[in-house]
Amino acid sequence: MAEEKKIPYKIYLEEKEMPTAWYNLRADMKNKPAPLLNPGTRKPMKQEELEQVFCRELAAQELDDETAYIPIPEEIRNFYRMYRPSPLVRAYCLEEKLQTPAKIYYKFEGNNTSGSHKLNSAIAQAYYAKKQGLKGVTTETGAGQWGTALSMACAYLELDCRVYMVKVSYEQKPFRREVMRTYGATVTPSPSGETEAGRAILKKHPGTTGSLGCAISEAVEAAASREGYRYVLGSVLNQVLLHQSVIGLETKTAMDKYGIVPDVIIGCAGGGSNLGGLISPFMGEKIRGEKDYRIIGVEPASCPSLTRGRFAYDFCDTGMVTPLAKMYTLGNNFIPSPNHAGGLRYHGMSPVISQLYHDGLMEAVSVEQSAVFEAAELFARVEGILPAPESSHAIRVAMDEALRCKETGEEKTILFGLTGTGYFDMVAYEKYNDGRMTDEIPGQEELERGFATIPRL
Amino acid sequence: MAEEKKIPYKIYLEEKEMPTAWYNLRADMKNKPAPLLNPGTRKPMKQEELEQVFCRELAAQELDDETAYIPIPEEIRNFYRMYRPSPLVRAYCLEEKLQTPAKIYYKFEGNNTSGSHKLNSAIAQAYYAKKQGLKGVTTETGAGQWGTALSMACAYLELDCRVYMVKVSYEQKPFRREVMRTYGATVTPSPSGETEAGRAILKKHPGTTGSLGCAISEAVEAAASREGYRYVLGSVLNQVLLHQSVIGLETKTAMDKYGIVPDVIIGCAGGGSNLGGLISPFMGEKIRGEKDYRIIGVEPASCPSLTRGRFAYDFCDTGMVTPLAKMYTLGNNFIPSPNHAGGLRYHGMSPVISQLYHDGLMEAVSVEQSAVFEAAELFARVEGILPAPESSHAIRVAMDEALRCKETGEEKTILFGLTGTGYFDMVAYEKYNDGRMTDEIPGQEELERGFATIPRL
Repeated sequence: MAEEKKIPYKIYLEEKEMPTAWYNLRADMKNKPAPLLNPGTRKPMKQEELEQVFCRELAAQELDDETAYIPIPEEIRNFYRMYRPSPLVRAYCLEEKLQTPAKIYYKFEGNNTSGSHKLNSAIAQAYYAKKQGLKGVTTETGAGQWGTALSMACAYLELDCRVYMVKVSYEQKPFRREVMRTYGATVTPSPSGETEAGRAILKKHPGTTGSLGCAISEAVEAAASREGYRYVLGSVLNQVLLHQSVIGLETKTAMDKYGIVPDVIIGCAGGGSNLGGLISPFMGEKIRGEKDYRIIGVEPASCPSLTRGRFAYDFCDTGMVTPLAKMYTLGNNFIPSPNHAGGLRYHGMSPVISQLYHDGLMEAVSVEQSAVFEAAELFARVEGILPAPESSHAIRVAMDEALRCKETGEEKTILFGLTGTGYFDMVAYEKYNDGRMTDEIPGQEELERGFATIPRL
Repeated sequence: MAEEKKIPYKIYLEEKEMPTAWYNLRADMKNKPAPLLNPGTRKPMKQEELEQVFCRELAAQELDDETAYIPIPEEIRNFYRMYRPSPLVRAYCLEEKLQTPAKIYYKFEGNNTSGSHKLNSAIAQAYYAKKQGLKGVTTETGAGQWGTALSMACAYLELDCRVYMVKVSYEQKPFRREVMRTYGATVTPSPSGETEAGRAILKKHPGTTGSLGCAISEAVEAAASREGYRYVLGSVLNQVLLHQSVIGLETKTAMDKYGIVPDVIIGCAGGGSNLGGLISPFMGEKIRGEKDYRIIGVEPASCPSLTRGRFAYDFCDTGMVTPLAKMYTLGNNFIPSPNHAGGLRYHGMSPVISQLYHDGLMEAVSVEQSAVFEAAELFARVEGILPAPESSHAIRVAMDEALRCKETGEEKTILFGLTGTGYFDMVAYEKYNDGRMTDEIPGQEELERGFATIPRL
């Protein structure tokens, strides 16, 4: 106990201890993630093909399976200094509340105006777009965190920013739209009548509340139809996981500094950006056989790509205009129940995470949203941070793990990623506070309908 | 320049460098703030009289003009460790954007779920109430930050919390209400039909959008009519400024550590809690003749208590049920235009701040809200933090000062308090983004109507 007292509530690294290079886990993976395929030729995408969608350096990062460390440009490091290093928090109050012998830590990425970790990749993607002399970028956003993050990065670099926002979020979160507008972005609810992809989806599913898959189709089309624009994406891609490695690298440095070794590492998983970033240096050690960790991805039961999806090549979007990625997928046409409150609505999963999961290097569990909000409320009350619904998926599983330790008496060290805050999710919290939240899990028939849209190669 | 580079973007103290005692500026003031008067007898309130409204230890702190340092109980220090020390930020990006030779620093108090500095006093007040064995507390909230902070503190200590929320904020900020509910508080829009004070105000001003003064009357009445409840207040009082000294103490320690001496210290002023807390150790040095600083309080032109009010004894509330305080006041009946978007809506001002201002130890300026939001937007874009409208009053004046330095070439060091974030103020930002924000300054006649309600002693 005496030794433990030395660990502060929050471990902040000094600025000079911040990473100067991103870590590219792919370099250490024995089975590399499968390459993206050209949707026309069904052949692996080449650099020059990717450059039609993404800007040059990002296309290179997307394809680079070899370089373990990629230097972070100084301009990006300076931006990081405005809100990083983020704290690694010892959840003393949660431990006390749960009366668990487990030691719980969380890496908190919500202390910035975008409210999440998404800013780590937004600034990188905006920086490379600016460097290439582009005028602007287009993107989609689901819960709104990525759109906000990209708006902030673009405002900082004076780039134009056009965001297609999943309609259900646009309606539930009018204030998210205003934050993006304050940062100078144009925000359009998706599906919209502005693009061919949007019009096609509206025709096929009138009254749809949208999905990330639809919004991606629209954003990709919008970029392609404008001179000097490229599309950027907040999750799923290899490049995004690369940028998000800053989360894991900081966590590892902070833990090493205090001699802390996690037994279990838990992260929520929508497209996989936070999970991939958080686990990267730990997974690297695990793959290299240096250490062993139990690693768990947590997804919503209403959008269970890892736990109930298929490992197959699928389109990243609903409109089937993007490259094909080999990933765990529910089918590009799968749209979670509008009853589902949080983010993590994506039909697929990062190819890196998918490969790691397929190779048995990590586990996945799905949780129901009422249990997630119950954990969120308890966490808010004892730890003083109102968490994002997405992040609360990880809280739920971390708490369950800590409660198991209470039964067994094990003093496990649990690390989880607290990706963001729920300040713009109060409609969902209201539903929970009013006792109106229910759980809706897709039946096998519904899943089969989704699977039917996975292309046969 | 080389020496400057050593100063990081954010200075975080270590936990062991956090203050262990609050600093009571009154102990060093030559002219003490005038005592509160009993509203019936018009004689100075005694400890036992104050205890009918406030809990015991807080009543003692309210009256203590002698003790310079009051230890912070360990339980409160542990709570502080969940979100403090707060960062002292060097605004490199803002300096660059303004092309000013000035060095700008801000103490950022928004990195907690209440979104402001209010939590510093909320936990202290809730702690003493709990310690006294009370069941719960009642309070008012304007912009909603104080109510949120108190809800969080009460949830942590398992105390009941009843909040009267100024109606205009209740309507503009439905999500604030949900945050408070998530923390288990009961929230009532004020004026309400629940209290005599509320009913009287509604009768006199049907359709009023409320004011802090009305909400205080209701909260005081609600506490008095319930067994085991006391009233707590988020600003104005001596005890609140005492707790908020933690802001200034951390700032001073951080600045001393890097050899930084501010020339100008700027804080927004509603009831005076942030301003009083930020300036306290600096003002102490100034009063003791050890150092000189220029100190500026910034208030909205639509609620200009320091710059256009009278220095007189007045009720702290509109219903005239509270003790009388000697302060700069616009009259207890003064209600700012509903057009006014931010907080800082209080008719009076902390007696400590009022006395310091009266004694010429500090300056005050008022600013119009369109200029405030212009500064807020620029700040958000370059510094990456979307500020609360209240805090943006200080940003406006800090920017003006930095722009003056640009003209004169002076390399002044400017320190300001960034009290919180604007995530629940997007209705106001929307108004600004849509070009619908106007400035409405009370005419002399309107002020006279307010002054007429100041009692003659």
